Amino acid sequence: MREGFAAMMAMFPIPDVRTSSIELAGRPAVRVEPEGEAKPAKILYFHGGSFALGSPQTAMGLTASLVVRTGFSAVSLDYRLAPEHPFPAGIDDCVAAYRTLLDEGLAPESIAFAGDSAGGGLTVTTTIAARDAGLPVPGAIVAFSPGLDHTRAGATIETKEGIDPFFTREGMAYTGDMYLGGQDPHQELTAPAVLGNLTGFPPILLQVGTNELLLDDSVRLAQRAREAEVDVILDVTAGVPHVFQSFIGQLDEAEQALDRAALFLTQHLAAA
Amino acid sequence: MREGFAAMMAMFPIPDVRTSSIELAGRPAVRVEPEGEAKPAKILYFHGGSFALGSPQTAMGLTASLVVRTGFSAVSLDYRLAPEHPFPAGIDDCVAAYRTLLDEGLAPESIAFAGDSAGGGLTVTTTIAARDAGLPVPGAIVAFSPGLDHTRAGATIETKEGIDPFFTREGMAYTGDMYLGGQDPHQELTAPAVLGNLTGFPPILLQVGTNELLLDDSVRLAQRAREAEVDVILDVTAGVPHVFQSFIGQLDEAEQALDRAALFLTQHLAAA
Repeated sequence: MREGFAAMMAMFPIPDVRTSSIELAGRPAVRVEPEGEAKPAKILYFHGGSFALGSPQTAMGLTASLVVRTGFSAVSLDYRLAPEHPFPAGIDDCVAAYRTLLDEGLAPESIAFAGDSAGGGLTVTTTIAARDAGLPVPGAIVAFSPGLDHTRAGATIETKEGIDPFFTREGMAYTGDMYLGGQDPHQELTAPAVLGNLTGFPPILLQVGTNELLLDDSVRLAQRAREAEVDVILDVTAGVPHVFQSFIGQLDEAEQALDRAALFLTQHLAAA
Repeated sequence: MREGFAAMMAMFPIPDVRTSSIELAGRPAVRVEPEGEAKPAKILYFHGGSFALGSPQTAMGLTASLVVRTGFSAVSLDYRLAPEHPFPAGIDDCVAAYRTLLDEGLAPESIAFAGDSAGGGLTVTTTIAARDAGLPVPGAIVAFSPGLDHTRAGATIETKEGIDPFFTREGMAYTGDMYLGGQDPHQELTAPAVLGNLTGFPPILLQVGTNELLLDDSVRLAQRAREAEVDVILDVTAGVPHVFQSFIGQLDEAEQALDRAALFLTQHLAAA
């Protein structure tokens, strides 16, 4: 499955950036820099792949798109995957990576968490876990088609079945079981769209398509954010699939969504 | 009340634009142009004021802010107000104005409807009425804190009472009664957040604060838009009041929200 996913994701174009392999909090990571001088803010990127697949390379088109559009540099983390490392290993890695960036002297207001799919979920759960560990929250969160509920209670899990070109409920259950490893999904960090305490969160941008089983994960998280008095943009594009932002050069909607994400990041990080 | 509203709104700054009085479909209107050459797209602006107050001048700060940021010209319509002219007089005027722009040769894809408060509601109801009259829909809709439900069924009508610094339920009922003039509020064009058929709508941007009785008007309209397969951005800023975009020069959130609105308009109208 990992080879197949990597091969599929390798078909997406990657804008011109400079990349270098680094280590971050004991995990491999990839530093992604714009071709010119980087502006003083940092994107900590979490790739997608259902918590079981993927790597910084499989999401490089998305990471590079944000870097090119913002002028910020990014670090994309190769967090531990299930089934070898079930929940909460990945979240632990993401928090450790963030803590290291802070220890290196970066201001939290100059760091954004960004991610797609499972990695979009990690932008939220890492913020919860970091806050609850006593760390300051980052300056902004950008999540593309995030997975935010392992209880799978969203209505679109049923209503978009057969419409979503990437997921089936059965497929999601398969990787979800790997990630949970027998643990209860009814926990804040496995179902933040249902149970997440978003108090003190920075501004959140959620981008999602209507052809997605996961649409209601974003809808419900946005509701929780509003109730917690958090700035939140629920940015829904009709008729597009999961993580449509990958389709740069093919879908105008992808370029436009990325431009909106870049403006959002610039608004909330540039001053830092 | 009209004098008091005009005096209050006159306290907001107006970016530098060129304005000229015109007539549009038998109603007074104000043409608003950027200081340089205008790009070939048009904003048809509907001012706020609870359908009973206001004029193009009272919303000029908002209209000019969009013109300056997009480079598009605007026309702000002085539609008929209640109680002298209850529902649906204002909508009729807005549709007539739009029809005139189309008759003058403007492409619908090059026209955006934008408005605040009651005028935000008019961006939606005018689109419904225009579509149902056989006209093509405009290219985009931008609504600041729109009023979209005269049945007042949104939960925030209760939960934000005492938090909203501009509205009370009692005050809204007073002007709402003027607008309805004894007519049933349970109609598509008086309660589009509850009953609106948004099929075929162009992309919609809804911006609203959490300190608003009207918050759920936008929340519910966004839900209806998603269900109708319409692109919709529900852009919520925490801790700000009704039409906070007026507070340019005082609130960073105002400038940032207007920048996002301008990007949205540019994305959906520029190609036209």
